[in-house]
Amino acid sequence: MALELYWGSGSPFSWRAMLTLELKRLPYESKLLEFSKEEHKSPGYLKLNPRGKVPTLKDGDFVLYESLAIMAYLDRKHAEPSIFGRKPQETGLIWRAISETESYLLEPAFKVVIPLYFGRGMEKPDEIQSAAATIRQELGRINAALSDSVWIVGAQISAADIALFPFIQTLLRAASKDAAKPLDLGFSPLDQRYPNIAAWVKRVEAIPGYEKTYPPHWK
Amino acid sequence: MALELYWGSGSPFSWRAMLTLELKRLPYESKLLEFSKEEHKSPGYLKLNPRGKVPTLKDGDFVLYESLAIMAYLDRKHAEPSIFGRKPQETGLIWRAISETESYLLEPAFKVVIPLYFGRGMEKPDEIQSAAATIRQELGRINAALSDSVWIVGAQISAADIALFPFIQTLLRAASKDAAKPLDLGFSPLDQRYPNIAAWVKRVEAIPGYEKTYPPHWK
Repeated sequence: MALELYWGSGSPFSWRAMLTLELKRLPYESKLLEFSKEEHKSPGYLKLNPRGKVPTLKDGDFVLYESLAIMAYLDRKHAEPSIFGRKPQETGLIWRAISETESYLLEPAFKVVIPLYFGRGMEKPDEIQSAAATIRQELGRINAALSDSVWIVGAQISAADIALFPFIQTLLRAASKDAAKPLDLGFSPLDQRYPNIAAWVKRVEAIPGYEKTYPPHWK
Repeated sequence: MALELYWGSGSPFSWRAMLTLELKRLPYESKLLEFSKEEHKSPGYLKLNPRGKVPTLKDGDFVLYESLAIMAYLDRKHAEPSIFGRKPQETGLIWRAISETESYLLEPAFKVVIPLYFGRGMEKPDEIQSAAATIRQELGRINAALSDSVWIVGAQISAADIALFPFIQTLLRAASKDAAKPLDLGFSPLDQRYPNIAAWVKRVEAIPGYEKTYPPHWK
């Protein structure tokens, strides 16, 4: 039975699951939920995922949600190519990088993205600027780490890249909105501000199947 | 060369690393940092962990921080007993449970604990009560899941238990403070409010070496 992925267009967490599936060349049935129709809050979907969030993976009778859990499950079940490292040190550094994304980048990212996407909170530019300053610190750290490494950890693309990438793209998209212009977030142009991250984005975009993961409503 | 663990008393993230070390029966050199002396911000420590957070593990020349990364590293290097599952489904469910702790419990937990521990934010009881309501929802979900399971996932203690446990203990300690009395947080007495969680806490407390992980300044 084919894997089924329930996802939403533009959800960075969904994007992680899709990139993992493409990297591992796993065919799956796409179940695109329309946020505008509240399909992720429908009774049928809430039976799969009581939090009404995306993504959710269905593998036969087994249902799993939370993006990092889906990545860890797929990697344990379909080992090639490995995305959580082969040696203990790689595994440790990959989870360190993922933890840093989760703990230090996501919260400020949402504080910038939500106002710029949905207009909520635009009346508090100081809070957006403050979150942007934190994000620039993290981007500076990542840019420096990528100066002598092709991928976030080690010589192969890993879960550390997959977990981070959708948030970089989401931040760039938010920064490209008209409403962002007076804020001077300092993320773009990426190739001037953070050239190593810009080169890394291009490497991720070159993985086979990448175009299938790109949020359809962004096109 | 022995493992070295840099940690702080009462840090739930440090507690995770210590529980993992005890479960795996790994001897280690304890490097207790005194928060009151800002030892976690000293130049020497910042060389190991630029964020100045705890815990940090040193294994020979290899230095690793972020609690979940330390757990994943130790599990990959010292496989027995496994704490991230043997089968893909177990691995997926363990990371789902960890993600739920990270994403839905930690933020409200800190919103309750920081005011009660340090007095900061006590002038906004509504915000504390609101965070407590979110926590009660999560505790209710966990209590229900433990009605037909000895551990958070499966028949063995796993990283899902280790990641959650220090936060449950921290919440209970915060709720026991005098300042918490007028707030009626609804966490305790745990054995009446959430009896399955109370029984699970006793099971974790019974693991060999547990007493060595207990925050010294709590005694």
